[in-house]
Amino acid sequence: MSKTVVYEVEVMFGDCDPAGIVFFPNFSKWMDASSLNFFVKCGVPPWRELVKTTGIIGTPLLEIHTKFMRPATYGERLQIHTSVTEWRDKVLIHKHVVMRGDTVLCEGTETRAFCIKHPDDPTRIKAIPVPEDIKALCS
Amino acid sequence: MSKTVVYEVEVMFGDCDPAGIVFFPNFSKWMDASSLNFFVKCGVPPWRELVKTTGIIGTPLLEIHTKFMRPATYGERLQIHTSVTEWRDKVLIHKHVVMRGDTVLCEGTETRAFCIKHPDDPTRIKAIPVPEDIKALCS
Amino acid sequence: MSKTVVYEVEVMFGDCDPAGIVFFPNFSKWMDASSLNFFVKCGVPPWRELVKTTGIIGTPLLEIHTKFMRPATYGERLQIHTSVTEWRDKVLIHKHVVMRGDTVLCEGTETRAFCIKHPDDPTRIKAIPVPEDIKALCS
Amino acid sequence: MSKTVVYEVEVMFGDCDPAGIVFFPNFSKWMDASSLNFFVKCGVPPWRELVKTTGIIGTPLLEIHTKFMRPATYGERLQIHTSVTEWRDKVLIHKHVVMRGDTVLCEGTETRAFCIKHPDDPTRIKAIPVPEDIKALCS
Repeated sequence: MSKTVVYEVEVMFGDCDPAGIVFFPNFSKWMDASSLNFFVKCGVPPWRELVKTTGIIGTPLLEIHTKFMRPATYGERLQIHTSVTEWRDKVLIHKHVVMRGDTVLCEGTETRAFCIKHPDDPTRIKAIPVPEDIKALCS
Repeated sequence: MSKTVVYEVEVMFGDCDPAGIVFFPNFSKWMDASSLNFFVKCGVPPWRELVKTTGIIGTPLLEIHTKFMRPATYGERLQIHTSVTEWRDKVLIHKHVVMRGDTVLCEGTETRAFCIKHPDDPTRIKAIPVPEDIKALCS
Repeated sequence: MSKTVVYEVEVMFGDCDPAGIVFFPNFSKWMDASSLNFFVKCGVPPWRELVKTTGIIGTPLLEIHTKFMRPATYGERLQIHTSVTEWRDKVLIHKHVVMRGDTVLCEGTETRAFCIKHPDDPTRIKAIPVPEDIKALCS
Repeated sequence: MSKTVVYEVEVMFGDCDPAGIVFFPNFSKWMDASSLNFFVKCGVPPWRELVKTTGIIGTPLLEIHTKFMRPATYGERLQIHTSVTEWRDKVLIHKHVVMRGDTVLCEGTETRAFCIKHPDDPTRIKAIPVPEDIKALCS
């Protein structure tokens, strides 16, 4: 069984579009926040701390896949249920389920890599093997 | 003494800019959410309900004035202290103070008008006198 | 051969995150804008016009799938190459390729349905068969 | 006469709120982008370059003041007319006028300071006197 951490957001007026519902890229923003919250709740320092000790600047996205089942609107509280479903050499797969109480609104996976500044070119980034200690904390 | 309602937000990674701090327009977004929360907590229905009974579509901004004192970053919880400091015929003045615990980060005023769809042209909006019942609920 | 329409965006400072690169949900926002631009350039009226004559409120997303190959940063001009790769009964599949000149940065598909307000409940929406005239304009 | 530089944006669907009009903090985002564009067009390197030679990380906002006269919606092209109306020791005052062709939609001022990382604490920033060479380029 993998750890699941729940992150809660309240939908703001400014998160909604002219159809009166959440503008869909905000679900990606919230999944991203929930990914970071997942690591922090598992005991991993925030990226701005981790970069000082390990060089890790974060876990940029390689790929996302999201299904939108039901809309949400402002004033509602949503819960994002986040876990890691797979660890590969250099990537991890996150699963996020966005719920409003018992109702599933949206489901997504994210493929992420731990990255550092590229040693030869600080304007680029470079994936590194998943650090074992982080994997242990999050499994 | 005017009512003050506190709205809490957690800063997300995606709210921050390349300087690593909250991208300032997000403070305006949060003040806007806090304004809506203020009305709801005072007993005013959300705009999508109110429009059905009164035609009021919301309280668009006429003017904002914001001072930024200290930055914030992701993972922090902020509190927006919101009140109405003045009611005029057709506008109200909101004051918002964004705090992180005891520290003031940002202060702003908003001038807002209650608006309906323009009776002659549904693509335009029209300010109406501040409804007395809403004023009573919020004072 | 399907029609391809190119939509250009300039990356703003506020589109970028603490890593100094485009915050990834903005690619989804731009693909969404490019989808709308695609329809308009093919001769379909904007949703706010179309709703008056057909009831169609837009083409909400059912699913997105995006791969991120290379980052972008502020000040850069990007081109989103958008087409429809498949028309089914009630959905269409968009393909978007985000380029910076000759370099592919990001590729994604969107599954969209044409929707109207639900006849029994105006707070819900309902998918309708893809209108033949719109399909003809866009193919 | 101060230099005026015009920055153009196209309003996207995702920039608009449930009232169908631009969500107002986006005007601040665009003014910010227009400020950066102003400096670049005047010959100042982008912040990510400037930081390497001068330590300047950008020009964070101290204060904004914005008046909203007319709304805008998606698909429209807006022009932001940006200038510096005042240079003080450590701050500059920007004026931005957002127009849609000949129509003024929104006007705002920004008070900005040139900042570096604080020498004693890299998590803080510090305002420096306006660099004379930048002032000369932009006046």
